[in-house]
Amino acid sequence: MDLSENYRNYIACINARELNRLDEFVSGDVVYNGRSIGIDGYRDMLAGNYHDIPDLRFVVELLVADTSAIASRLYFNCKPSAEFRGLQINGQRIEFHENVFYRYRNGKIAEVWSVIDKAEIERQLVP
Amino acid sequence: MDLSENYRNYIACINARELNRLDEFVSGDVVYNGRSIGIDGYRDMLAGNYHDIPDLRFVVELLVADTSAIASRLYFNCKPSAEFRGLQINGQRIEFHENVFYRYRNGKIAEVWSVIDKAEIERQLVP
Repeated sequence: MDLSENYRNYIACINARELNRLDEFVSGDVVYNGRSIGIDGYRDMLAGNYHDIPDLRFVVELLVADTSAIASRLYFNCKPSAEFRGLQINGQRIEFHENVFYRYRNGKIAEVWSVIDKAEIERQLVP
Repeated sequence: MDLSENYRNYIACINARELNRLDEFVSGDVVYNGRSIGIDGYRDMLAGNYHDIPDLRFVVELLVADTSAIASRLYFNCKPSAEFRGLQINGQRIEFHENVFYRYRNGKIAEVWSVIDKAEIERQLVP
């Protein structure tokens, strides 16, 4: 059985902002882009995202799954309130994608490799 | 059967720069990041990459496959000769990743969604 259903439940959880349920989906010692942030760091990261992007919503556009890993192309249409990834957005509506890999262990996300399409955002910024 | 072996043969082909064999792996009407470039456009894009990055080599770090799609995290360690993705590299050695999805049709790559980690490159640039 692949991990697709598990992953879609994770996305529903973070869209519902139910961070108290994050440990159902994320391993205690999770590593994110090479940094051992642990589940507390992961929760803090998401809370920071919710703060910086009040209308943040994760939409799965593509999903490839096997028995131990997920790759997901996520779509965002949102209005970051100020700076985002070093870019001054200041409330402008932007669309962008994230191509992200997740390695699972014991049914939970253990390692994440995320790339945001920064060039896609830059093309939309009002000069 | 998943598409992993087919994909690894594609990567071997483009690392060998055998662009005359590209039609073994890429569909004639391939779409790349939403643009209908076709196999001629795809071949031109790769030829341009070889020209701009003489030591270009594709290394598969992660691979997730199902019966109709591939997701691959590619690693590059290379010296682009001049500008690359709007950044002035000018022969500096850089490392970066690309998280890329491929939809297959009839055993060939029919659609590609690629994201380059531009922020990763920016962090390495000598000011």
